[in-house]
Amino acid sequence: MPEPVLSRTAALDADAHDPLAGVRNRFRVPDGLLYLDGNSLGALPAAVPAVVADAVGREWGRDLIGSWNDNGWWTLPARVGDRIGALIGADPGQTLCGDSTTIQLFQVLVGLVRLRPGRTTIVTDGANFPTDQYVAESVAKLLGLRLVRVSPADVDTVLGDTALADDVACCAFSAVDYRTGELWDAPGITRRVHAAGALMSWDLAHAAGAVPFAVDEIGADAAVGCSYKYLNGGPGAPGWIYVAARHHAGLDLPLTGWQGHAEPFALAPSYAPAGGIERARIGTPPVLSMRALDAALDVFDGLDLQTVRAKSLQLTGAVIAYADAFLPQVEVVTPRDPARRGSQVALRLTEGAFEVTQALIARGVVGDFRDPDVLRLGFTPLYLRHVDVWDALEILRDVLETGSWRDPRYAERGAVT
Amino acid sequence: MPEPVLSRTAALDADAHDPLAGVRNRFRVPDGLLYLDGNSLGALPAAVPAVVADAVGREWGRDLIGSWNDNGWWTLPARVGDRIGALIGADPGQTLCGDSTTIQLFQVLVGLVRLRPGRTTIVTDGANFPTDQYVAESVAKLLGLRLVRVSPADVDTVLGDTALADDVACCAFSAVDYRTGELWDAPGITRRVHAAGALMSWDLAHAAGAVPFAVDEIGADAAVGCSYKYLNGGPGAPGWIYVAARHHAGLDLPLTGWQGHAEPFALAPSYAPAGGIERARIGTPPVLSMRALDAALDVFDGLDLQTVRAKSLQLTGAVIAYADAFLPQVEVVTPRDPARRGSQVALRLTEGAFEVTQALIARGVVGDFRDPDVLRLGFTPLYLRHVDVWDALEILRDVLETGSWRDPRYAERGAVT
Repeated sequence: MPEPVLSRTAALDADAHDPLAGVRNRFRVPDGLLYLDGNSLGALPAAVPAVVADAVGREWGRDLIGSWNDNGWWTLPARVGDRIGALIGADPGQTLCGDSTTIQLFQVLVGLVRLRPGRTTIVTDGANFPTDQYVAESVAKLLGLRLVRVSPADVDTVLGDTALADDVACCAFSAVDYRTGELWDAPGITRRVHAAGALMSWDLAHAAGAVPFAVDEIGADAAVGCSYKYLNGGPGAPGWIYVAARHHAGLDLPLTGWQGHAEPFALAPSYAPAGGIERARIGTPPVLSMRALDAALDVFDGLDLQTVRAKSLQLTGAVIAYADAFLPQVEVVTPRDPARRGSQVALRLTEGAFEVTQALIARGVVGDFRDPDVLRLGFTPLYLRHVDVWDALEILRDVLETGSWRDPRYAERGAVT
Repeated sequence: MPEPVLSRTAALDADAHDPLAGVRNRFRVPDGLLYLDGNSLGALPAAVPAVVADAVGREWGRDLIGSWNDNGWWTLPARVGDRIGALIGADPGQTLCGDSTTIQLFQVLVGLVRLRPGRTTIVTDGANFPTDQYVAESVAKLLGLRLVRVSPADVDTVLGDTALADDVACCAFSAVDYRTGELWDAPGITRRVHAAGALMSWDLAHAAGAVPFAVDEIGADAAVGCSYKYLNGGPGAPGWIYVAARHHAGLDLPLTGWQGHAEPFALAPSYAPAGGIERARIGTPPVLSMRALDAALDVFDGLDLQTVRAKSLQLTGAVIAYADAFLPQVEVVTPRDPARRGSQVALRLTEGAFEVTQALIARGVVGDFRDPDVLRLGFTPLYLRHVDVWDALEILRDVLETGSWRDPRYAERGAVT
């Protein structure tokens, strides 16, 4: 692990030796923008506009309905799924792209619970992303289950209680805490959950594309994720579902669209699921959005995710070192241990976190605010330079030291904050 | 109702007097293609490519995360929903766009059943589009309900049995039979279902944009539909959900994504639904696909749906008259009564329906095949000319009379048939 950069010169030097330096050209990052929000919406990959224009003009406009065969629309969910699978450590045939993360999580929770008949408890993290908790609540209500919320750090308080543990059907955590950026010990937690006879699902929304993951190797039973963060698939890019092959035959999913049928074109009146992960297909997926995502994934071609991870840790390490050295107004919430850190840094501010976020945006530094007091900065190693991070931190320091964030215009809240 | 056109001259004359003739210019229909499959995938509206390119390049590429506020991404589901609502007779604030029809139907069925506690039967059509039946099966299984399948024509056999009728929570039919093109008596059936104390949902996939519908006026409780058929929103364009305002306050939907929360940005750990139809939001919708749909809906600006309907009936009437006069090999499956006819004509062939469909495609006439013996022809009055229909029928006649469809290459089946 190299030393964190603590000067602009050191940052420029790190860029000069960055094995990923050329990858920035695979994106269209706006000039002058210091974009630290790729964990919310990834930047536009340069290949996307032409691919989408072709999907609209030629595939849809000219080839019309024939595109389902001739332009491969039908096989997109599995093909894009496998490309994402390669980034999360999944062998082919276990990952399928389509619908939103919410939908995929609903599929997974019902599907896993049904694989453990007789068990009536599901476990999620009380600090999990809201949708993850809401879906767990809804599934618990639909299936008459008990929902237990516990931090992944404290999962033993549930699984160590034999009576309770024997009732757990599945446990659904996020690999990276969306707010704090904490990366959980997925292999250890998965083992622990399996030891209790339960199944484990990981939400990789804040991991896929930035933090290497190994769903097959650690024995995860299922995983879900979105595609518009570190996968750079564009706004609302379709989410995806992974289910380990060993579960496919018995997998009974609740969202039974015609595309997941064993013989979709027989148009039979009763549902019979397709073999393999194809049974996770639902209705007709948003092809244009999926074409954008497919093109976006090209940026990963030929990249080693360990190299991506190393740069990510360099960048987040530099932020933490800078905060320690120059930002007495902030508390670093994200773990300092690289092994427990996602690709973001959450900074807790004693006051004005919302206004500081807005003041930064006004100066071309885009991060985001997480209620009530967190400035969240995300780091996509594929297009961020070390010097970008340095410059952003210098602006943050100036905003804090000068108190420029106290300008009343930074307190105005839009619909989406 | 004008006479059906039964000559090319008459067709050209009808085009010369067609009040919708200019609307074809709002589309990019490929030269020389006779596209009778707009009921499967509508043609590309001319405004779409530029709007999508702008959504990719400027909104995503330049404005990035700020687009949720600045470019109106956040309000797209409600705005596009209201535009679709206007085409199905819904006052604003009751229709929301997003996710697939399958997902929306799942929401509706669970939501309606929960509005009728104590009732344990749901009714669907045994000839309904497969997804509609599969979702009903899944909801019945999840909620422990009985699923009864009956044709809308025979709904009285269920609702006339008092013991059974008193147990019906909801009835879910399609307004137009996707295979036969039969348009059901939605007002009458809705009244009948209400008289039994049950709720009524209509799937308008094969109606919206071609057959005027009046969800509010007939008192439908809910409706769903896709956007890629007569709404021309592009492949996999997001579906939509309508729920009558009187049900919003008590509406308890199962797919509880964060965007449907009362305070989505408070990121609260427990779900509390938003007011109004906003509670039907789920996860992050596919923005690029929704932008395409939004632009596509511009083709309806200033159009009177009754004019659209009149032309649709002229076109389908011409097909039926032509079949009667010149096509002894086919049986017209679609009702001859205009009041009972959607915007398609299904022709049953004594042999070779699949091969005939392929032979037509080879000659530039695109319809589709519905297993086992139906050639289905869809008619979008917005871009089809009377002469297109005439020419397509002449080619069909030639294919049938010469037996050219017997060429073995027309028997080959692709992944999507």
